[in-house]
Amino acid sequence: MGDSFGQVFRITTWGESHGGGVGVVIDGCPAGLELDVADIQAELDRRRPGQSSITTQRKEADTAHVLSGVFEGRTMGTAISIMVWNEDARPAAYDHLKDVYRPSHADFTYERKYGMRDWQGGGRSSARETVGRVAGGAVARKLLATLAGIETLAWVSRVHHIVAHIEPADVTARAVEANIVRCPDALAAQAMIERVEQARKAGDSVGGVVSAVVRHCPVGLGEPVFDKLTADLAKGLMSLPATRGVEFGLGFAAVELTGAQHNDAFECVGGQIRPASNRSGGIQGGISNGQDIVLRVAFKPTATINHPQQTVTRDGTPVELQAKGRHDPCVLPRAVPMVEAMINLVLADHLLRTVTHRDLEHLADHYRKHRA
Amino acid sequence: MGDSFGQVFRITTWGESHGGGVGVVIDGCPAGLELDVADIQAELDRRRPGQSSITTQRKEADTAHVLSGVFEGRTMGTAISIMVWNEDARPAAYDHLKDVYRPSHADFTYERKYGMRDWQGGGRSSARETVGRVAGGAVARKLLATLAGIETLAWVSRVHHIVAHIEPADVTARAVEANIVRCPDALAAQAMIERVEQARKAGDSVGGVVSAVVRHCPVGLGEPVFDKLTADLAKGLMSLPATRGVEFGLGFAAVELTGAQHNDAFECVGGQIRPASNRSGGIQGGISNGQDIVLRVAFKPTATINHPQQTVTRDGTPVELQAKGRHDPCVLPRAVPMVEAMINLVLADHLLRTVTHRDLEHLADHYRKHRA
Amino acid sequence: MGDSFGQVFRITTWGESHGGGVGVVIDGCPAGLELDVADIQAELDRRRPGQSSITTQRKEADTAHVLSGVFEGRTMGTAISIMVWNEDARPAAYDHLKDVYRPSHADFTYERKYGMRDWQGGGRSSARETVGRVAGGAVARKLLATLAGIETLAWVSRVHHIVAHIEPADVTARAVEANIVRCPDALAAQAMIERVEQARKAGDSVGGVVSAVVRHCPVGLGEPVFDKLTADLAKGLMSLPATRGVEFGLGFAAVELTGAQHNDAFECVGGQIRPASNRSGGIQGGISNGQDIVLRVAFKPTATINHPQQTVTRDGTPVELQAKGRHDPCVLPRAVPMVEAMINLVLADHLLRTVTHRDLEHLADHYRKHRA
Amino acid sequence: MGDSFGQVFRITTWGESHGGGVGVVIDGCPAGLELDVADIQAELDRRRPGQSSITTQRKEADTAHVLSGVFEGRTMGTAISIMVWNEDARPAAYDHLKDVYRPSHADFTYERKYGMRDWQGGGRSSARETVGRVAGGAVARKLLATLAGIETLAWVSRVHHIVAHIEPADVTARAVEANIVRCPDALAAQAMIERVEQARKAGDSVGGVVSAVVRHCPVGLGEPVFDKLTADLAKGLMSLPATRGVEFGLGFAAVELTGAQHNDAFECVGGQIRPASNRSGGIQGGISNGQDIVLRVAFKPTATINHPQQTVTRDGTPVELQAKGRHDPCVLPRAVPMVEAMINLVLADHLLRTVTHRDLEHLADHYRKHRA
Repeated sequence: MGDSFGQVFRITTWGESHGGGVGVVIDGCPAGLELDVADIQAELDRRRPGQSSITTQRKEADTAHVLSGVFEGRTMGTAISIMVWNEDARPAAYDHLKDVYRPSHADFTYERKYGMRDWQGGGRSSARETVGRVAGGAVARKLLATLAGIETLAWVSRVHHIVAHIEPADVTARAVEANIVRCPDALAAQAMIERVEQARKAGDSVGGVVSAVVRHCPVGLGEPVFDKLTADLAKGLMSLPATRGVEFGLGFAAVELTGAQHNDAFECVGGQIRPASNRSGGIQGGISNGQDIVLRVAFKPTATINHPQQTVTRDGTPVELQAKGRHDPCVLPRAVPMVEAMINLVLADHLLRTVTHRDLEHLADHYRKHRA
Repeated sequence: MGDSFGQVFRITTWGESHGGGVGVVIDGCPAGLELDVADIQAELDRRRPGQSSITTQRKEADTAHVLSGVFEGRTMGTAISIMVWNEDARPAAYDHLKDVYRPSHADFTYERKYGMRDWQGGGRSSARETVGRVAGGAVARKLLATLAGIETLAWVSRVHHIVAHIEPADVTARAVEANIVRCPDALAAQAMIERVEQARKAGDSVGGVVSAVVRHCPVGLGEPVFDKLTADLAKGLMSLPATRGVEFGLGFAAVELTGAQHNDAFECVGGQIRPASNRSGGIQGGISNGQDIVLRVAFKPTATINHPQQTVTRDGTPVELQAKGRHDPCVLPRAVPMVEAMINLVLADHLLRTVTHRDLEHLADHYRKHRA
Repeated sequence: MGDSFGQVFRITTWGESHGGGVGVVIDGCPAGLELDVADIQAELDRRRPGQSSITTQRKEADTAHVLSGVFEGRTMGTAISIMVWNEDARPAAYDHLKDVYRPSHADFTYERKYGMRDWQGGGRSSARETVGRVAGGAVARKLLATLAGIETLAWVSRVHHIVAHIEPADVTARAVEANIVRCPDALAAQAMIERVEQARKAGDSVGGVVSAVVRHCPVGLGEPVFDKLTADLAKGLMSLPATRGVEFGLGFAAVELTGAQHNDAFECVGGQIRPASNRSGGIQGGISNGQDIVLRVAFKPTATINHPQQTVTRDGTPVELQAKGRHDPCVLPRAVPMVEAMINLVLADHLLRTVTHRDLEHLADHYRKHRA
Repeated sequence: MGDSFGQVFRITTWGESHGGGVGVVIDGCPAGLELDVADIQAELDRRRPGQSSITTQRKEADTAHVLSGVFEGRTMGTAISIMVWNEDARPAAYDHLKDVYRPSHADFTYERKYGMRDWQGGGRSSARETVGRVAGGAVARKLLATLAGIETLAWVSRVHHIVAHIEPADVTARAVEANIVRCPDALAAQAMIERVEQARKAGDSVGGVVSAVVRHCPVGLGEPVFDKLTADLAKGLMSLPATRGVEFGLGFAAVELTGAQHNDAFECVGGQIRPASNRSGGIQGGISNGQDIVLRVAFKPTATINHPQQTVTRDGTPVELQAKGRHDPCVLPRAVPMVEAMINLVLADHLLRTVTHRDLEHLADHYRKHRA
């Protein structure tokens, strides 16, 4: 009972790593949005395994099938069902894991929680489940762009000890996609790729940080108290596999400043009131303030490695485990579209939620027009 | 529409800083829990303003009134309503803020979102709303202790540049409550108190980090995909005022290790399978693994300071603002019970949710007994 | 875990018959709605016990206290907390019921469900809980009238064998409130009052039917599949105490017609497309069609009677029960404001939900204005 | 945003009449339930079009595909995705309806709500969406039988003026399935079949009533106030296409009795406390009391008929409409598995919800075992 996300723009995902397929049902997308399967495929292609030499070599075309909710090129306001078949599943490759708990995987926790588990490639705990999120996020992205011109951009800002040097304001989609590690700092990117290759050759793995910026977000997204924009983004991002932390604006580094240093003074430029600085990262009191939303997510090094590791079987017998499945030596490049998807899903939900809370004149006007 | 939190153990809070009062309704607490108003008062007292020289001097007894859901000392399974009256509200003290946007407060975002705002002490965006969470968290704490012996403990581990040196495993409630800054490292605590005093005298403010540990958490709390324990904890914690980031286990520092270094190998000791190390912080695949849950939350320096600050009025006129309201030079000491409350609320919700997902034998057994 | 109702305009109620009080928290009411405590009191007065010779003689002023969410006469978009104190609670009057299950009450089911119960006046199962609904419904009514001119009207159309003869289109609020039984057919009303008096004298009780009409409802309220307007209204109405059935349009009598007889043909009058008849009762495919919404709710005879009745104690011993508490010989007159409240709560929720699903031009326009 | 149903056992359905297919995602089914595709197919076959001479002649095999959530014959606790392809869709057959509003269909309301509609066979408003519910209901049925031995049985008790004479207690599944109209009164069944044939020949349609009984339901299902069992059943049932009313126990006829006549006295037989009669229909105070749950649902005559009908086009031009699509002259026989599905979905949800609210000893015991 945790397969749904969102209140008004709400997705429900399904599917295991080596079952029939994976998919998503989107409930609450407004009617009339132009939506082409290519919008969805573009995002799935960025998430796809086997896309480069530094990702897992599992071969999946991940072709999106839109089964409902779209008619003559536009959304109908009804549930949108999108699915992808599993094509390169090799369950036999996991036979040796049937009775073994892989270190820092969900094998042990799933089995204890449910009294059983799908040992083929991690089942539902596999990152393959993110296909559904990314497909849903593609629809959210289209909605955000169409309704409010919102643009979400994520990139790899760190891999192991290699840190990119680039300001969020300067990042472009083109620069992110210019290399296989999705780091817009070309020099750092080269070093990151080498670091990942090195980890792969050593049978080891590395983690890193994905940074993200949201541009042109209207003022007013986020709800008081529990459904703050920071809170819902944190939940969405921390629900991604392998995440270890999330921070907004200056994040943990805000601790180093005093209030006088950290506060964003307001100014009025060209008749528009806005904060003169953006140490808050675009969100104040949990509500977007019109500035760029800035955040970072930490991903741990992939748990699956080719190193021999000590572990135990279901009955507690110590064994040495040597992973054989195909896997990513570093999840960061493929995490970029996942981070964007979660941000877009949260923003789409809040964009629609916000409409109902605006001052009454707007709503009354809506119904006046509606009756006319 | 963001005043509720939780799926099965669910709280709804209400109240503004300078309105009639603040409160919470708890829906979904099981029947039969022994609950005394003192259980709730103890937590409210730790959150209370004016509790020490380094907190705001607003005088509120914050006396808890339990208005429903408890009968003859036990919960009835029906909605528990708890409220606290606002006694020391001084709305007139905020007259000068009626048309001014305080930097890094929610004044601007609330007004743009709603077309209006309660300018008396921040209204709903005031940290006074946390009374409801802390009261709800007190009931959750009692439930967790009674059902599963779970113990949640938070403490101040950093204030500005002063960092406490203590292992989560060594922290005790007594050591946390031994000083007014709630830091169990007595030496660091002294330095922190001095740092806060210094900030207060300078009319400035400081932030910091709250760390927390959950002990004796059963294996299996957390749901796959979106309602991972990490995700729901992140949401709950990032919904607290002034938070900037959250991390689990090694958190952002996990990035510095390789997979071989970070993975927690399993071992079997005394017939019990468990991870031999706890770099994952007690949660794997989003589900508790029986180890201590370890997390940290960053709080920014308080936005309200007595420094003169540049800002603008609602019509865009630049003004110099000098805050006059009573406020905390550092929210960290009072944030400790808030962090514990959010953790307990999330755990109580997941503890109850988990029951329904266990293997069928347990459930069938329940109904067999029930029928008999 | 069933104390909340609604998705976007959402109420949570609390309180027992003989506890401290009863109340409601409304989450999701848009900002800027003019709201006076008199709006709420007017509805509570219609629900109030002791309002006439044919209702229970419990004396409760049921004075509404608005504790949050309203500032300078307008809603703020934040949670609205409203409460009423219990003043005339007489728990001692229920001592003799402590160990006895009253026939057709919730005593037995509550105790088996929770392992305990509040035996003072029914606790949470008492109709006193409807105070919270009616207060919430009053806010919903104000919202519906302000936003879309929607008017909801209910009345008693049957008491025991006495049936009112009046068309929904002809009913006025004035005619409903013209007599203590709330039946707009004056002749039938007189007979109904006599029937209730007769039941009271006989120590017995009678049931009946409440009819309702919603006027000026815009086209488009209700969601496909599960959240049809009929479905949500049915849930809301069947959650009222003592209800036994609900029907829409012709209801069960629709069965007597063939399709050719029952279908509502469309016509175009003055450029407006509309059904030429209203056998569907204003809802087609679960969505409002702009015609009057017409429905009926059946209420059973009050379970509390002064007749001696056979029952058993908790340990199964047969006893003869003679009720002593104050109670209504017929719930119908007081059920009228309850039915209106539930209809208004459902419509307010759907009115707000509907905004987010309209065609994109409307939403994009909203954000264009918002950005400007 | 109305495609999901349930709180803990929750289904989300998708699909249009003439799109790629229809399906359901089930979230919250406990792990370990033995589930075979045949369990699902059996229910789909009872709902299938073309199953007899008195249903629509659309040819759909409605073969169930289980795409996730089941592993080695048992549920895994993760989302169960089930789908059916649309095979005999003939969108061209609806070309003449593109601009016309069919009387008493959802064409007009959908188009006004969304600014567009799928005119091919009703799109999402088609009864074809019930495939998802019935598949979900089949899983719920298996869960109820396995956990608590609950049995749900529905049948056609009336078609137009023909009323079956049979007591709920006497109905068997075999008798229901013994004839194509699903009426266990063989004599009435024959008359009903003739009545439907007659309507079909006349190009007309007829409605009727489905009755249902739930046997072996444990005491305690249903939540106080809003999520009463009656309320959630009413919502589920009234969300079915073509429903006009629902009633429980004596239903509207309860109005004809006085309280003394209607009340169910308690007795103690063989050490078991229970009501001596069942006029309440198995639910008291919204909570199951262990007696048979008894209810009835009214279905209107099918809106699609072959009679020429007056209506208008989208621009208001009057036209005469002659339906050409394949359709049911009477939905009742196929409504029987739909009614059972909705009842089972509600009961499964409440069965799981109820576990968390039981007295603490049970829950503490669960966690004690869990830790051991």
